Amino acid sequence: MPDATPAQDSLELIARGADEILKREELEARLALGRPLRIKAGFDPTAPDLHVGHTVLLNKMRQFQDLGHQVIFLIGDFTGMIGDPSGKNATRKALTREDVAANARTYADQVFKVLDRERTELRFNSEWFGKMDAADMIRLAARHTVARMLERDDFAKRYTAQQPIAIHEFLYPLVQGYDSVALEADVELGGTDQKFNLLMGRGLQEHYGQKPQVVLTMPLLEGLDGVQKMSKSLDNYIGIDEPAIDIVNKTMKIGDALMWKWIELLSFEIGAEEARRLRTGVEAGLNPRDVKLRLARELAARFHDAAAADTAIAGWHAAVRGEGDTSLLPLQDVAVPAEGLRIAALLTAAGLTPSNSEASRKLRERAVKVDGAVVEDPGRAFGPGFEGVLAVGKRNFARVRLITAP
Amino acid sequence: MPDATPAQDSLELIARGADEILKREELEARLALGRPLRIKAGFDPTAPDLHVGHTVLLNKMRQFQDLGHQVIFLIGDFTGMIGDPSGKNATRKALTREDVAANARTYADQVFKVLDRERTELRFNSEWFGKMDAADMIRLAARHTVARMLERDDFAKRYTAQQPIAIHEFLYPLVQGYDSVALEADVELGGTDQKFNLLMGRGLQEHYGQKPQVVLTMPLLEGLDGVQKMSKSLDNYIGIDEPAIDIVNKTMKIGDALMWKWIELLSFEIGAEEARRLRTGVEAGLNPRDVKLRLARELAARFHDAAAADTAIAGWHAAVRGEGDTSLLPLQDVAVPAEGLRIAALLTAAGLTPSNSEASRKLRERAVKVDGAVVEDPGRAFGPGFEGVLAVGKRNFARVRLITAP
Repeated sequence: MPDATPAQDSLELIARGADEILKREELEARLALGRPLRIKAGFDPTAPDLHVGHTVLLNKMRQFQDLGHQVIFLIGDFTGMIGDPSGKNATRKALTREDVAANARTYADQVFKVLDRERTELRFNSEWFGKMDAADMIRLAARHTVARMLERDDFAKRYTAQQPIAIHEFLYPLVQGYDSVALEADVELGGTDQKFNLLMGRGLQEHYGQKPQVVLTMPLLEGLDGVQKMSKSLDNYIGIDEPAIDIVNKTMKIGDALMWKWIELLSFEIGAEEARRLRTGVEAGLNPRDVKLRLARELAARFHDAAAADTAIAGWHAAVRGEGDTSLLPLQDVAVPAEGLRIAALLTAAGLTPSNSEASRKLRERAVKVDGAVVEDPGRAFGPGFEGVLAVGKRNFARVRLITAP
Repeated sequence: MPDATPAQDSLELIARGADEILKREELEARLALGRPLRIKAGFDPTAPDLHVGHTVLLNKMRQFQDLGHQVIFLIGDFTGMIGDPSGKNATRKALTREDVAANARTYADQVFKVLDRERTELRFNSEWFGKMDAADMIRLAARHTVARMLERDDFAKRYTAQQPIAIHEFLYPLVQGYDSVALEADVELGGTDQKFNLLMGRGLQEHYGQKPQVVLTMPLLEGLDGVQKMSKSLDNYIGIDEPAIDIVNKTMKIGDALMWKWIELLSFEIGAEEARRLRTGVEAGLNPRDVKLRLARELAARFHDAAAADTAIAGWHAAVRGEGDTSLLPLQDVAVPAEGLRIAALLTAAGLTPSNSEASRKLRERAVKVDGAVVEDPGRAFGPGFEGVLAVGKRNFARVRLITAP
């Protein structure tokens, strides 16, 4: 087989983890142009508090940057500043220009943990929509039909269920689509749930005499539970501003099946080829924990730095295996009576077991460690002044300091 | 029975010929306020060449004026200057500001034949929409739902028939509705086909804290054929700029049943009460032609003046009954061979009969008159230089001058 051309290499990297590429041959043709492509991704101006799930898209943007392309981080502030004009959604209040600027700064603080600042163009769509008048909006609305808009999945469902759809909701996909015209995007990235809106850009670009953008959708990342998509409200997330030790601890708790998906969508260090090799290795007996440790370290390093990641990994080892420097683990104060608590009650007080009976069961299973040593005696008690690492199994641990309950 | 109050009198006049009043009790309450009401009617900026059918609405506006109310003649130039942004309707090209001004002048030349200039406010909706930006249009679009818009009859039909509806078409009724807000209309008048759009104003006014306008719809006027609505394209119309004699001739040709409808919708001089009396009279033997002559004279006088109307009526009498001054009729040149034409061929050449055989039949029926005298001899010929009035029956006549065919 001949060596892959650079364009083919690029295509393989870009396609990694992608849900859909529309159309793949168009992407190939653009990559072959040899010029930096303009890669657009749009972000909501209201929610700049990112978790790892959001970084799936940022990672794909970063891969494009690493291949020499120009990424456009677009903040949809125009509609954000309108808010919910139907007044039905009280939580979607209109943002001020100051809100938008503040949110953009918060975004910048976070996204440049992933993106290359040099190859990122930060834009706001109020730049062009702020200059448009009512007549321009009517002209834009003429570019699409009611029937095709009602084909969008959520509109179709609501229309069928006789739930109201305000007419301005039909304008928002057109606004997003027109952004691609204004930006002359070559490629637009988004979640699978954004596919309809991404395709809107293609039609509008054609109308405005541009070559239609390639649309690339990324799947939604499953959260820590491995079932639901990662979200704050489900509390199955890793925030990208969390301490390194928490990133490591949470990552080390995900299931093995989910680990491979996370590697595909989150890891730069473990490439597609290496992931396949590791998978074969695990099937042959390699401990999946060692693979997970690499992923955890990579994520902690991305959102902090290499030193912090190493410390966090060391802390995790210390707690679970009773080795290394436990002082790297965050210290948690637990209030206990002056006379102390028996081990089962202490584990529960520290949040490591849901109940004393569960704690007792873990004791009988020899799953409880204090400073790396198994504790079996249910009568063993700890009083104020004690400081050490408690662990229940390999995944639950805490470094505690006992203080007197007030 | 007690005497009618002035408000009740007004209500009766306003309701005359109206298709629907929504809501009648609201109209009554407004009339009882004793202040001049603001009566809105919207007009298309593209078609200022009016026929009598258009005057049904103008007449109703005039009645409001005669009752002391303020009429707003609104020209929808904002959307007119956008044209058809979907580009599908090549005939609806975007108007310039100059086009709009020229059309408004043409309108003014015509509508003040009916309306009282003193009580007419000429407005253009670009006045307020020209100041609106894209965000304002989005906010306006939020005021209505897709489902309710699809209830509009023509949208429903097109949606069901899978004919495309461009999204901007959903914005136009909102634009029209918002005009009522901007104008603080008390009443909006329109054709029955405009009912949906007129109701839009009610909802928007309520949203903007105004009392919702009363909506009054007028039926569409049937044209000369008595079947189809009056329109240029069906050639069943009387243009309001036509010569008085043509207005009279065309009016005299309508059927008796149609005459009563025209009286209701077009006559000020024949009030509701008198129309009822005349109807009874005709049933008792009064010649309906005499009623029609009154209507024809009124219309000719409205669009010209009393003297021109009297002349036209005289001309009609002369042609049909062979009396009076035929020189009041327009003269039509008919080209004939140097040796002349026999009467049947001449009637056909003058457009009074569709064929020579039909003309011969009319001769046999003694329905053909030349200068008021019956002609029976099919051999009678007329050559270049002849000038006179030809009539076939009571409704078809022409004053002709025969010239030599080249």
